[in-house]
Amino acid sequence: MPELRKDPISGRWVIISIERGKRPSDFGMRVSPKKGGFCAFCEGNERTTPPEIMAFRSDGGKPNTPGWTLRVVSNKFPALNVEGQLNRSGEGIFDRMNGVGAHEVIIECPDHNMTLSTMPLKSVEEVLWAFHHRITDLKKDIRFKYVLVFKNEGDEAGASLEHTHSQLIALPIVPQLVEEELIRAEQYYKYKERCIFCDIIHQESADKKRVISENDYFIAIAPFAPRSPFETMILPKRHESSFYPRGNFSQLARILQQTLKQIDKLLDLPPYNFMIHTSPFKNEENEYYHWHIEIIPKLTKIAGFEWGSGFFINPTPPEEAAKFMREVEIY
Amino acid sequence: MPELRKDPISGRWVIISIERGKRPSDFGMRVSPKKGGFCAFCEGNERTTPPEIMAFRSDGGKPNTPGWTLRVVSNKFPALNVEGQLNRSGEGIFDRMNGVGAHEVIIECPDHNMTLSTMPLKSVEEVLWAFHHRITDLKKDIRFKYVLVFKNEGDEAGASLEHTHSQLIALPIVPQLVEEELIRAEQYYKYKERCIFCDIIHQESADKKRVISENDYFIAIAPFAPRSPFETMILPKRHESSFYPRGNFSQLARILQQTLKQIDKLLDLPPYNFMIHTSPFKNEENEYYHWHIEIIPKLTKIAGFEWGSGFFINPTPPEEAAKFMREVEIY
Repeated sequence: MPELRKDPISGRWVIISIERGKRPSDFGMRVSPKKGGFCAFCEGNERTTPPEIMAFRSDGGKPNTPGWTLRVVSNKFPALNVEGQLNRSGEGIFDRMNGVGAHEVIIECPDHNMTLSTMPLKSVEEVLWAFHHRITDLKKDIRFKYVLVFKNEGDEAGASLEHTHSQLIALPIVPQLVEEELIRAEQYYKYKERCIFCDIIHQESADKKRVISENDYFIAIAPFAPRSPFETMILPKRHESSFYPRGNFSQLARILQQTLKQIDKLLDLPPYNFMIHTSPFKNEENEYYHWHIEIIPKLTKIAGFEWGSGFFINPTPPEEAAKFMREVEIY
Repeated sequence: MPELRKDPISGRWVIISIERGKRPSDFGMRVSPKKGGFCAFCEGNERTTPPEIMAFRSDGGKPNTPGWTLRVVSNKFPALNVEGQLNRSGEGIFDRMNGVGAHEVIIECPDHNMTLSTMPLKSVEEVLWAFHHRITDLKKDIRFKYVLVFKNEGDEAGASLEHTHSQLIALPIVPQLVEEELIRAEQYYKYKERCIFCDIIHQESADKKRVISENDYFIAIAPFAPRSPFETMILPKRHESSFYPRGNFSQLARILQQTLKQIDKLLDLPPYNFMIHTSPFKNEENEYYHWHIEIIPKLTKIAGFEWGSGFFINPTPPEEAAKFMREVEIY
C-alpha cells in the first residue's frame, strides 16, 4: 500500500508509492504519450481499463461496452489505494499514514482526436457533471476529507496518455495548499466580514484590465500574482463555497471551453494543467471560501530558485496576458 | 523595474519581470543550452559578461581578464534589479513591492567541460567560499533580508547555459518556504527545547537506513518525506543556524561532490537543482534553525495534482534511494 508521509520541517505531505518502487534505471526512459497505436480509452476497448465506476450512455447499454459518451474508471496505477482503513503511525519524530484514497480517471469523450477545446460543448458539460457526481458519491465515504479534481494536458504537463481525460483524487486529509487558502480566506472574513474572492471579483470587474471574459454566472480573470504566464482563474460571480451545480454547468462549460480555446490559439496548443479548488467536505457551506478553477499553461520551468523559495518568476504581466486573451480570435 | 506581487489568497509572492514582458509567440521557441559555439562564461570571454563582482585569481591579474579560477558576475537578465529603493504599495486589495534585489552568477570554473562532480575538489571548495563571501557582502545592504543560493544543472532543471555555474538572489523579504520552515522549527524548539534538525540527525544516525554518507562534520541523508526520487539533504552534524565556514568547507566540498557523483553515476547525469537554506540575516544565530543543502534530481513531473494540492508523488522510497546511493561505486 502506498504511504503518506509528512515532512516535519516544511509540513509538506508526500505520497510514497511503495509498490511502484522505481529503481534508478527506470528514470532514463521517459515514456511519452503514444501517438497512434492502441488506446485503452477509445471506444471498443472498454475491457482493457479497470471496470467502469460510472458512464453516460444515451442508448441504455451495458457497463463496459461501447455506446458511452463519457466513462469514469479507476486509475490503473493509482497514487492511493481505495481499500483499507486509515491508520496513522509514527517513526520517532516522523509521521505517516497509510495511503488510503481514490484515484479515478474521467475519460471525457470516446473520440481519440478530441480535446476539451474541440469537443462539442455538450460533452464539456458532461465532464463537469461527472466531476459533480463523483464528488457527491465519494463524499459518503467517511475516510475522505477532500476530492481534488485536475487535468494534465500534454506530456510536459504530466499526461501519460494522449486520449483526453481528467482525474480526481479523494484524500484522507485536506491538502496543504487548500488549507492555506482556507485559513487566509477565513482570516480575511473575520476582519472584513466579506469573502476575499467576492472582493477580488468586484475589484477586477470594476477595473477590467485583468478580466478575460465573463457571462451571466462566471468570470475568467488573470490573477494579480500569477505563477505562470497566462494563468487563468474561473470563478462563479455569486458567492458559492463549493463546486455545486447551483451556478449553471452549461455556462461553466461555455467559459471553460472558451478559455481553453483562447489558450490553444494564442500559445499554439501548449501543455497545461487545471485544478478545481473547493471547500472541504466537513465545511462545504461557508461564507469565506469561494470555489474556482485554476488553469496553468506550462510555459516556464520550475528551477532552483522556485524550489528553494516558493517564489515564482513570471515574464508576462497578467494585464498583458488578459489583453492578449481578450483579443485573440477564436473560431 | 520588475515587480514583486503577493497573491492574497495563497500568500505566495511572484516576481513579474515587466521588462522581459514575454509575448505569446515567445514561448514556442524553447532555448536549449548551446552545445559548442560561443560561451560567455569561458576563459578569454570575460568582456562579454557584466563586470566581475569578485573572482579568485592566483596570479594577481586584473579583473575581467583571463587567469581566474572562479568569477562572480551580475546576471545579464536579472529577475530583480539591484538599483532603487524598496517601495511597497497597494492596488485595492492587492500588495506589490518594486523588485529590488541582487541576482548574481557564480561561474564555478573556467573549463567549459567540467561540472561540480568532475572538477577538482579544490574548485568545489572555492565555489563554497564564493557563496560565503557574496552572502557576507550582500548582508551589508540593509534592503536585503535573505540570500538564496541555488544551482540549476541541465536544461530540464532550468539552466539556460551549459557552462557550470550556480546563482544567488538577494531578496527584500524572507521567502515563504524558508519562513514556513523557520516557524515550524521554532514551534518545535519551544515545545522540546531542541533543534528539530539536530533531532532528525540523531534519529537518522541511529537508524542508518536513510543515511547516504557522512564525514567528521557533515551528513547526507535521504529525507523521510522527499518530494522527488533521490532527493538528498546535506547538513552539518553540529548545530549551526547559518551557512558559516565554522564547519569546514573542505569537508563540505567533499561530501557535496561525492553526493553529486553518486547521483550522476546512478541516474546517468540527470538534471538537478540544489539550494541552500539558511537563517535570515536578522536572526542568523539561533537555537532552532539548522542550515542545509537540498539536492533535487529532476526525475518526475509536477502535474495538476501537485499544483493543486501541494502534495508530491514519489515512486522511490527514500530507504531504497539511500541504499542505492550507498552502494553505487564512484571513481
